[in-house]
Parts: sequence; C-alpha cells; structure tokens
Amino acid sequence: MTAAALTRDQARAAAERVMARCDELAAISETPEALTRVYLSPEHRRANALVGDWMRQAGMTVHQDGAGNICGRYEGATAGARALLLGSHLDSVRDAGRYDGPLGVLTAIEAVHHLHRQNARLPLAIEVVGFGDEEGVRFGITLLGSRALAGTWPEGWLDQKDGEGFRLADALREFGLDPHRVADAARPVDDIAAYLELHIEQGPCLEQADRALGVVTAINGARRLNCTFTGQAGHAGTVPMGQRRDALAGAAEWMTEIEQVTGRAGPDLVATVGALQCRPGAVNVIPGQARLTLDIRGPEEEPLDALLDDLLTRAGAIAERRRLTFDADEFYRIAATACDSGLQRHLAEAVSAVQGDAPHLPSGAGHDAIALAHRWPVAMLFVRCKGGISHHPAESVITDDVALAIQAYTQAVTHLATNTALDLNHG
Amino acid sequence: MTAAALTRDQARAAAERVMARCDELAAISETPEALTRVYLSPEHRRANALVGDWMRQAGMTVHQDGAGNICGRYEGATAGARALLLGSHLDSVRDAGRYDGPLGVLTAIEAVHHLHRQNARLPLAIEVVGFGDEEGVRFGITLLGSRALAGTWPEGWLDQKDGEGFRLADALREFGLDPHRVADAARPVDDIAAYLELHIEQGPCLEQADRALGVVTAINGARRLNCTFTGQAGHAGTVPMGQRRDALAGAAEWMTEIEQVTGRAGPDLVATVGALQCRPGAVNVIPGQARLTLDIRGPEEEPLDALLDDLLTRAGAIAERRRLTFDADEFYRIAATACDSGLQRHLAEAVSAVQGDAPHLPSGAGHDAIALAHRWPVAMLFVRCKGGISHHPAESVITDDVALAIQAYTQAVTHLATNTALDLNHG
Repeated sequence: MTAAALTRDQARAAAERVMARCDELAAISETPEALTRVYLSPEHRRANALVGDWMRQAGMTVHQDGAGNICGRYEGATAGARALLLGSHLDSVRDAGRYDGPLGVLTAIEAVHHLHRQNARLPLAIEVVGFGDEEGVRFGITLLGSRALAGTWPEGWLDQKDGEGFRLADALREFGLDPHRVADAARPVDDIAAYLELHIEQGPCLEQADRALGVVTAINGARRLNCTFTGQAGHAGTVPMGQRRDALAGAAEWMTEIEQVTGRAGPDLVATVGALQCRPGAVNVIPGQARLTLDIRGPEEEPLDALLDDLLTRAGAIAERRRLTFDADEFYRIAATACDSGLQRHLAEAVSAVQGDAPHLPSGAGHDAIALAHRWPVAMLFVRCKGGISHHPAESVITDDVALAIQAYTQAVTHLATNTALDLNHG
Repeated sequence: MTAAALTRDQARAAAERVMARCDELAAISETPEALTRVYLSPEHRRANALVGDWMRQAGMTVHQDGAGNICGRYEGATAGARALLLGSHLDSVRDAGRYDGPLGVLTAIEAVHHLHRQNARLPLAIEVVGFGDEEGVRFGITLLGSRALAGTWPEGWLDQKDGEGFRLADALREFGLDPHRVADAARPVDDIAAYLELHIEQGPCLEQADRALGVVTAINGARRLNCTFTGQAGHAGTVPMGQRRDALAGAAEWMTEIEQVTGRAGPDLVATVGALQCRPGAVNVIPGQARLTLDIRGPEEEPLDALLDDLLTRAGAIAERRRLTFDADEFYRIAATACDSGLQRHLAEAVSAVQGDAPHLPSGAGHDAIALAHRWPVAMLFVRCKGGISHHPAESVITDDVALAIQAYTQAVTHLATNTALDLNHG
C-alpha cells in the first residue's frame, strides 16, 4: 500500500504538538532557570521515559539500548524488515535552547504517527532514535549515543571522567546499564537502510534566503589548532615601532589575513579565531607572546586542508618578517561528512513540494549523522531558526516552519520506505 | 676658580665605585631574590642612610626632606648660592633591575666628589637628590618624591592607600615624617637654577646607534585608553564569513592600522596594544566583544593628539563598516615634557667631547624630570643599557659606558655651575 500525504491541517496540528512537546522536554532540566540535560543524568532518564511514551502512542515498540538511547520501531509490511532510521539527540548544552536535538526526534515521531494513523505498513520499517549524548557536555567526548549505535564506541571511553571525577563506566551503572554491554547497542549494518536527521540550522542561511527548509549537502569537517606567536616583551614607551618584536601585532596581521583568505576561498569555508590571550598583558608593555585558537571548517576535505596549509604558511611568513616564532598545534580534527546524493534528491523533492524550491547548504555544526555515516547513507533536513541563534535560550523556530518540515519529512520518509530499490550512494 | 676635567683613570675608578654601589643598593630589597624597594619602607630608610653616607663622603651636607627624599648640598663659592640640582630616584619596581634610578643618583655624587677632591667652589652650589618614589609601586600614584620637591603634591594624596589598605599619611608617620609637613619639601623657585638627570635609556636606540650616551630632547607625553569593539557572538561553524559581526576581527584590523599609521607618523611616535581580551573566548564561538588597551606616546603634544584622533577615527570607520560598535575611554594622560634647549646644548657638548658626537633622542619612559619641569628648566642624559631591557633583573649597563657618562656629566655640571648666566629656556 501507499500512504496518503499529510494535509495542511494535519501538519499544523502535528507542528503544534511538536512545539508543545519541545516545551515539555525543556522543563526536564538539571536547573530550573537554564535548560541543561546531560548524558546518564536523572533528566536523561525522565526524557527517555517521556519520549518512549510518545513513541508508543505513535504505534512503535520501544526499548532503551545499551548506551541509553531511546529507540522506537514501527514495523514494516513484513516482520523484521530493514529499517529507515530517523533520529537526533535528547541531550543539551548548558543553558541551552529547546529545539537543538529534540525537534528531530519529535518530528520523526510525527512521521510515524501519520503512517500509524492510516495503518500503513511499508516495505521498510521505520525506526526512531533519541540519542543520549551528542553534545558531549558531561564527559568532554561527543556523539556517544550515535557512536554506540554505529558500533564505533572505543572501549577506552569507559574510563573517561566527568567534571566531578565520576567515571563513565560508573555513570552507566548508576543509570541501570552494564558498561560491558554498550556494544550491544551497535546495529548490524544490514538492519538499517539509511539514516535521516531533521535539525534546526543553527545558522542564518535559510533566514537570509527567506526559506523554511533546506537540504544539507555535507556536515563540515573541522580542524582546531592552538597557535602561538612569540616575540619579545618590551617597554611600550621606549622601543621604536621599527624595532619591535610585537607578538600581538603579528597575530593581528594574521587574523586579518585569515578573514580575507577564507572569504575568498569559497562561500562554504569558515575560519574563526575565537580566543586570544597575550602576555604579559599590561597596557604599557609590548606583548611578547600571543596565543590564539583557530577553528576552520568546510564541507570537503581537500579545500579545507588547502586552506589550512595556506593559513599556516602565511603565519610562518608573517613571523619570519617580524622576527617572531610561530607554532601551531592541531588538537581536534574531524573529517567532512558528505550526505548521500540519492537521499538528498528525495529530501529535495519533498522540500520543493511544500515550499517551491529546495536550497542546499552545508552544516557548519556537527551532528549524530557524522557517526551514522560510518555505517549507512545519511542525509539531513534543516529547519530555519531565528537569527541563526543556537546553544542559547533564545534559540527559536516558528510553528509554520515546523508544519512545513513535518509535511516534507513525512513525504520523504514515506517515499524512501516505499521504494525498496533505494538509489543510495553511501558516502 | 675652574675645576679640572676628570681624567680617564679617575672616570674609570668612579665608574667602578658606582657599579659597586649599585650592587650594594640592590641588596637592600624587600625580598632577597627579587629586587623590590618601595616608598616609605624599611628598605627606603636603609637606602637613604647609605646614600646619605656617600653624599657626606663626597663633601655634601645631607638632610632628608619632608617627603622622604635624601638631599645633599655641595656649597658654592658663596654660602646660600642658587643650586644646580642633580638627581634621580631610589625606589624600584617589583623584581627590578639595579640601575633604573640609582645610576643617576650615584653618578651625580661622583660629579660632586670630583669637585670636592679639588676643593673647587663654583658660582652655583650643586645639590643631589635621591627621590623616595618615582615608580609609584606602593600607592599607585607616581613621582611622589619629585612632586613634593616641586611643590605640586596634592593634599588628597595623603588618603591614598597601599595594597594592604595602609594610608599614605600613616606610612609617612611610620617612616618618622609628619604628613602635614610634606609641603616643607617644596623648594622655592629661586633656590634652584635647573635640574639635570642621568638615567639608563630603558630602550634600544643608543645600542642600535652604537653609542654609550645620548641627550634627551623631551620626555614623551602619553595617552592610555580602554577600547571595546562589540559585535555579535555566533557559532563558528554555521555563520558564513560574510554574515559575521566578529568583534575580534574588527580589533585585528584596527591593530594592523595602528601599527602602520603610527610607523608612518614619525620615528618618535609609538603606539602599543598591550592587553586584549575577547568574549566569550571559546575556540568554536565567534567573538562578540573584544576589549583592548591603547598606549600612545610622543615627544610633542600636537602630533600626539593628531595621531590619537586619526586612530580613533579609523576605529570608528572599521566598526561602522563591520556593523560593530566602538567605544574608547581615556583613563590616563600625561603631557609631553620638553627638555631645555640650553641645557641640551651643554650636555651635547660634554657628550661630544667624550664620544665624538651626541645623538639626541626622546625618552619613552617617564622620569622625575617631568615633575621638576613644572618649576625649573630640565635636561637628561641617557646611558645605553643592554637590549633596551629595563624593569627586569636582566637590566644591564657596562662600566665603560658609566665611565664615559661620569666624564660627560661632570664636565656638563661643572660648566653649568660655573656659568652663572645660563642660557636657559624654561620648558
């Protein structure tokens, strides 16, 4: 059988339910005035229970996996069918917004709810997962939930400690899980056909383009470096401009080049100096050292590496000309994750059907889809958020946009789960 | 009578004595491992006693004035003659070098010693003063000794507190002074003909010019400002380069302009950004605010004000173009102090006599001469120091340079004290 598309009224009602449920989840917080919900906390347990109830109401069978992810399954036309996996995360940063994560879980439940209401059974089962940890706030490591499901959870993570010195293994135990059975959360590759994730954009591009929805082309790869210019401190009054070895002046020159070069390198590349300290740091002393961070991101590995090489070469040249030294230490690297082109096409068709066209854009932020992409084809649907603001209580989406998102998402899911000969190019 | 010039051997012996006495003074420190000698401390008392002894040995009558300055007088041909005042300070910064201040006091004592050895009495008396506070470390206000002597000590300073909450008035009392008689330290204008100060350069210009000695043209005026660029914080991954309001990027652009514009404005102007903080200051967040200090200095008021105006106008233009705001708050201003041209000529002749020529240079650092210039013509003689390093234990001068300095200084002092019709242009 095929399922009917959502009417506008149905989509509106579903969106209102999703908005109310986002509010309900936002009340499950470590602190009443600032939304904070971290992995394996009492709030995690309460959120899982609530989301599990909603999954059941939408016609799913529900279980919590070995890593604390809450999982629902809506069976296909034949029992044990391969599944189309939908999801996002239920944890948050500290003092968070209410849509980053939950919106993707709750809209997925609505898609299933729509099928269940018609008792539509498709060739593929639909599964929905609420991941327990994406943000990595508690243990300083990210994507714990999705990496467990993808089977790429390193054994060593069990010894990781939270800010109070509490080991992850003990936190799992306290949550009621067996730390030695986290691997049970890993899903056999053949069980799942593909992974889709709906998420707020967390950036300003859709708002600028005056569109509610967009299709993600790739999740940006990133590099993070600690960089240091070292010169010589000196008396701000007695050393002529031409004789200075001012580390901060060198850093300033580099920062202006970072901005210009990255701007010219293409619209999808970004580079940020987010933190800077100079020493000794007194009003009347020429800085002898400037330490700064560099964060660069882009949707493709090769241009990203080329940009990084260029920026580091320029830093070296600036340092040499100014009689400074320059050091850079890369402390974080994540590869770019391409979204599957076949899945993108299905999402684009569904988005075009509800808003006339389908802008494509990369994701600047990281997502659970990164971890899933190691095993399965992935794609993402972005929903506009106000001012691009995220990781902040002011994070905001409008009900109209969520209604369009549910219409498009449900249509894409239905088509994909109906078409067993998915034209998927993994990676 | 006229006095004979110092022979090279006499100058060498005098320089060795000065170097040994700098070492002896350096041992009078609050902490044994890091030279620190602050105003009205037990170390101040011991330094005054020792320097007073050396003054007496050089033929001077000695007293401590109402502000704790140690003062010696070598009488002229007639009792009560006007005096040529020589001096510098005996206090230090924390973890100081041993020549910043004491070198000027001890070389002045050698000049008097040379006259005394010949029993030469000149038309002008010679006075030597070791000021109790120039650095301002203890009470956060500077030039306390020289401002007391110049009669410009504000009454309100008595309520100023040190880092432990101890009032200046009480510190004076503990030192054995009457806080209500600080004004007694002020000298009548007619008592003093001019003020000369010998000091280490505290900068690299003489070393670069391969000269031991230089004549100071002016003590730079200075302005200090706290400046703030404010934009909007944002996600380092999701906001395209063209849509950012990055406060640190704006500050970086301004810093490069500060350096370029100041470099073009003239060799005697300097501008320094010594401290910078950005917020929120995380590797993955676009800075929404950058706070930085600006310190600019120059030997003449008008070009200094013009430079400051130019820099602030540029900051405003950068902010406007980048959709940032810019604020600047001037929290410190000191006018430039011109050295007397007649005194400069005398010093230049004496310097040329010992090293062939006399480089002229402004002083980037502040000195007691700033306070004295409010009442009397002033001039300064600079001695090369290693690497321009000062306010640091590595501060270093060589005995050969000190010998040349004593020769030139003694000659200039003798000439000036002999020539009662001094061609002085005060200011």
